[in-house]
Amino acid sequence: MSADPSSLADSLPDGMVVTDADILAGYRQDRAADPTAGTPLALVRPTTTEQVQNTVRWCAANGVPIITRGAGTSLSGGSTAVDGAIMLSTEKMRDIAVDPATRTAVVQPGLFNAEVKAAASAHGLWYPPDPSSFEICSIGGNVATNAGGLCCVKYGVTTDYVLGLEVVLADGRAVRVGGKQLKDSAGLPLTKLFVGSEGLLGIITEVTLRLLPPQGPASTVVGVFGSVHEASRAVLAVTAEIRPAMLEFMDSVAINAVEDLMRMGLDREAGALLVAQSDAPGAAGAAEVEFIQKAFESNGAGEVFATDDPTEGEAFTAARRAAIPAVEKLGSLLLEDVGVPLPSLPALIDGVAEIAAGNRVMISVIAHAGDGNTHPLIVFDPADPDEAEHAQVAFGQIMDLAIELGGTITGEHGVGRLKKGWLPDQVGSDVMELTARIKQALDPDGLLNPGVLL
Amino acid sequence: MSADPSSLADSLPDGMVVTDADILAGYRQDRAADPTAGTPLALVRPTTTEQVQNTVRWCAANGVPIITRGAGTSLSGGSTAVDGAIMLSTEKMRDIAVDPATRTAVVQPGLFNAEVKAAASAHGLWYPPDPSSFEICSIGGNVATNAGGLCCVKYGVTTDYVLGLEVVLADGRAVRVGGKQLKDSAGLPLTKLFVGSEGLLGIITEVTLRLLPPQGPASTVVGVFGSVHEASRAVLAVTAEIRPAMLEFMDSVAINAVEDLMRMGLDREAGALLVAQSDAPGAAGAAEVEFIQKAFESNGAGEVFATDDPTEGEAFTAARRAAIPAVEKLGSLLLEDVGVPLPSLPALIDGVAEIAAGNRVMISVIAHAGDGNTHPLIVFDPADPDEAEHAQVAFGQIMDLAIELGGTITGEHGVGRLKKGWLPDQVGSDVMELTARIKQALDPDGLLNPGVLL
Ligand SMILES: Cc1cc2nc3c(=O)[nH]c(=O)nc-3n(C[C@H](O)[C@H](O)[C@H](O)COP(=O)(O)OP(=O)(O)OC[C@H]3O[C@@H](n4cnc5c(N)ncnc54)[C@H](O)[C@@H]3O)c2cc1C
Ligand SMILES: Cc1cc2nc3c(=O)[nH]c(=O)nc-3n(C[C@H](O)[C@H](O)[C@H](O)COP(=O)(O)OP(=O)(O)OC[C@H]3O[C@@H](n4cnc5c(N)ncnc54)[C@H](O)[C@@H]3O)c2cc1C
Repeated sequence: MSADPSSLADSLPDGMVVTDADILAGYRQDRAADPTAGTPLALVRPTTTEQVQNTVRWCAANGVPIITRGAGTSLSGGSTAVDGAIMLSTEKMRDIAVDPATRTAVVQPGLFNAEVKAAASAHGLWYPPDPSSFEICSIGGNVATNAGGLCCVKYGVTTDYVLGLEVVLADGRAVRVGGKQLKDSAGLPLTKLFVGSEGLLGIITEVTLRLLPPQGPASTVVGVFGSVHEASRAVLAVTAEIRPAMLEFMDSVAINAVEDLMRMGLDREAGALLVAQSDAPGAAGAAEVEFIQKAFESNGAGEVFATDDPTEGEAFTAARRAAIPAVEKLGSLLLEDVGVPLPSLPALIDGVAEIAAGNRVMISVIAHAGDGNTHPLIVFDPADPDEAEHAQVAFGQIMDLAIELGGTITGEHGVGRLKKGWLPDQVGSDVMELTARIKQALDPDGLLNPGVLL
Repeated sequence: MSADPSSLADSLPDGMVVTDADILAGYRQDRAADPTAGTPLALVRPTTTEQVQNTVRWCAANGVPIITRGAGTSLSGGSTAVDGAIMLSTEKMRDIAVDPATRTAVVQPGLFNAEVKAAASAHGLWYPPDPSSFEICSIGGNVATNAGGLCCVKYGVTTDYVLGLEVVLADGRAVRVGGKQLKDSAGLPLTKLFVGSEGLLGIITEVTLRLLPPQGPASTVVGVFGSVHEASRAVLAVTAEIRPAMLEFMDSVAINAVEDLMRMGLDREAGALLVAQSDAPGAAGAAEVEFIQKAFESNGAGEVFATDDPTEGEAFTAARRAAIPAVEKLGSLLLEDVGVPLPSLPALIDGVAEIAAGNRVMISVIAHAGDGNTHPLIVFDPADPDEAEHAQVAFGQIMDLAIELGGTITGEHGVGRLKKGWLPDQVGSDVMELTARIKQALDPDGLLNPGVLL
């Protein structure tokens, strides 16, 4: 069946429905760069909830699937196009209203995370969640994937900041759940159900976010280790006693790739680097910094460096954030996002090294280490079919290992299209069936993001 | 239809199915003391998940409704019996295993909140959520209602500490969702869907809780105000700038009722009392204490008293926690739990006073003020039908007011049976229909907690 998008155009402002092949081509892939991405029937870039509703109603009437796309930075293929689908991009839904009295922000989904942070900051407030991609990803995508980031080891993930949502359901109705009240036990926890639902249950058209008073100044501790194993032990030594405001990990491949890109004088001989922060005030902060330094030293760090200069601290944070794009320059990436209960972090990191060796592929590990959430980056040359196949095998083996260690195949990027083959192994068939029942209840025709998760 | 509970007894250990009328009578009501509570067919007190499954399977096979009861402290009638139902009490499911390495606790649902706190504390760890009822309510009930408490103004509510669950579904299958990993984006957010689902979607048989390092010592600031209005303005002055670790409110009726009970020297002439805490370390804590003192003074507090003696601080916290039982001594209570966005707190508190005057009933207001969550306690004499009717009218008017102010009919106690008439007014018919669809997907025969919420 192939519906005629011109009848969709009738219910939307002039020019809002795009069928130009060149433009559509730019919306086929997300950052997972799936070569098998489809070609959408048309692209719609609404500015209002009503336009989203009109689009969904047309899709429902014509049985046309609909893929919601924020900024397309998904690393799990969540916003990859499907042949014949409508690609609904939220990029033009960019309003925000910060309300200092309730310490909330009401945001349209297309605004970037960094723009939300900036708008909050203009009112002396803070929106904590900080995925490394914060300058290029949308708040709607963050909500749909329940995005994490660097500070979530202390400040939590996106769901902890979502107080309310407006969602367009599969039949085109718009519902509001939650609101500006800080606590709300009225009815099923629907707000929480939509956060992290990867666009499968509805299209998020407005988000009410909780903001905090500004973060205090943070001190940064950097530890240079001979091996990834030592660094991962040091992570446990820190998290056993305190809650740092950040605890990030890079291995030698990532260190060198970042150094190639940024020329900031990182130690190219290092086996691993940890970047920690404490934002506890005054003497408590000083005590945390000292504790982290000692934990690094007693776990084999050759060099430990502490600073309370925010610019210096930000340089190391920026280095860590640049790791994915930097390693991407070495080849194509298969990007992992596995997480384990913290004590299993060394076993996971050691196991990934074995998987790399066993498959003769390069795997660089970076991690939100304080959460037990790692990103093994499998580097391969797509032109070499052998290597590409080994990379695929390693990709699966890493997820198998995480499941074996009692962990998860995805700590923050979502299952998307790339990882759905492994989801049943993690959660089991009963949970898959439960998931399907909820999907069926909310989207009986399966038009929202088909191919994701299920 | 009336099934024979002796066939249920066959699948359970001897004596586990109780049909003795005297014992059953003790399980009819919860703390909402609904006079129209039904009489259950039988009481089952399982110790294992498998016994819960057997019970649910029998209920499913025989079309018998099942009410899950934790400790029966529900204030919204959530665990009130229904005629002919199985009352499943979790009171004997009391195992706990604290794992300091992952900083988690795996708990059976029947353990009391205070016992979870104590077990964590024995390992030098802290389970924050602290409903006033913490010594008499179960962790399963806390999860089912997403319970709040005094410290949640800074440390969040129950859902923020639930990492994983085991849930027995309506067909008797047991599923596990989440786990010990701190971050998990694999699949729909089912863990979050069950927290706060009021026993409608499944029976929680095991909870994996996240624990924190111990809370630092807290300083307490008490402010004595001439009027509730001044006190509510002082709340806003505090929350506009800082995040206290506690910010609680009592009006003069509550102060006097608590003083009658505890004889601790509270000022009986006071119009309202605020009890705040700061647990920020060192100089930062001292600055917060000073800020709170000034905010109280500049909003009309006649007396402000600060202490860093934990015993003194705990005395005031205990006084606040005793407010509900203390006011209960004045008559029967209709217990409200309305919440509003913070700037509307003074309007809510003033409005409640008007509703009291308009209906000639006594309403005492206590509040988790820092969250905008208030508990107007409507005191009435059940033997006086006029007064009882006025109380009912006031009960509804308070919810209407909260909805009008953009708030919620329940901040933490849940909708239960008492408030379901108002839920559609708050959330609207589309959200009600969405709720019904999810209920239908998970419990098509409607056997779990019928009469709650829907
Ligand atoms: C260099 C780099 C670093 C990254 N670092 C992190 C990190 O630290 N932490 C982290 O969590 N992620 C990280 N990511 C992954 C990615 O940025 C996040 O998943 C982000 O939340 C996606 O936002 P987006 O706007 O790009 O969403 P998209 O890629 O456009 O979409 C992602 C998913 O959300 C759905 N979706 C988007 N908008 C909506 C909506 N309005 N309603 C319903 N569904 C919607 C899509 O259908 C899709 O399933 C990183 C990515 C890159 C490229
Ligand atoms: C004096 C007093 C003070 C209170 N203060 C607070 C407060 O500060 N904050 C707050 O949030 N609440 C407070 N409450 C209310 C009450 O204590 C909470 O709602 C508590 O979470 C209920 O726990 P319970 O074990 O008594 O649950 P119950 O009353 O037995 O049940 C409550 C609901 O949860 C369901 N349920 C219980 N166990 C399970 C399970 N294992 N699986 C599925 N469903 C289940 C029941 O079916 C029912 O719907 C207070 C109550 C009293 C009497």
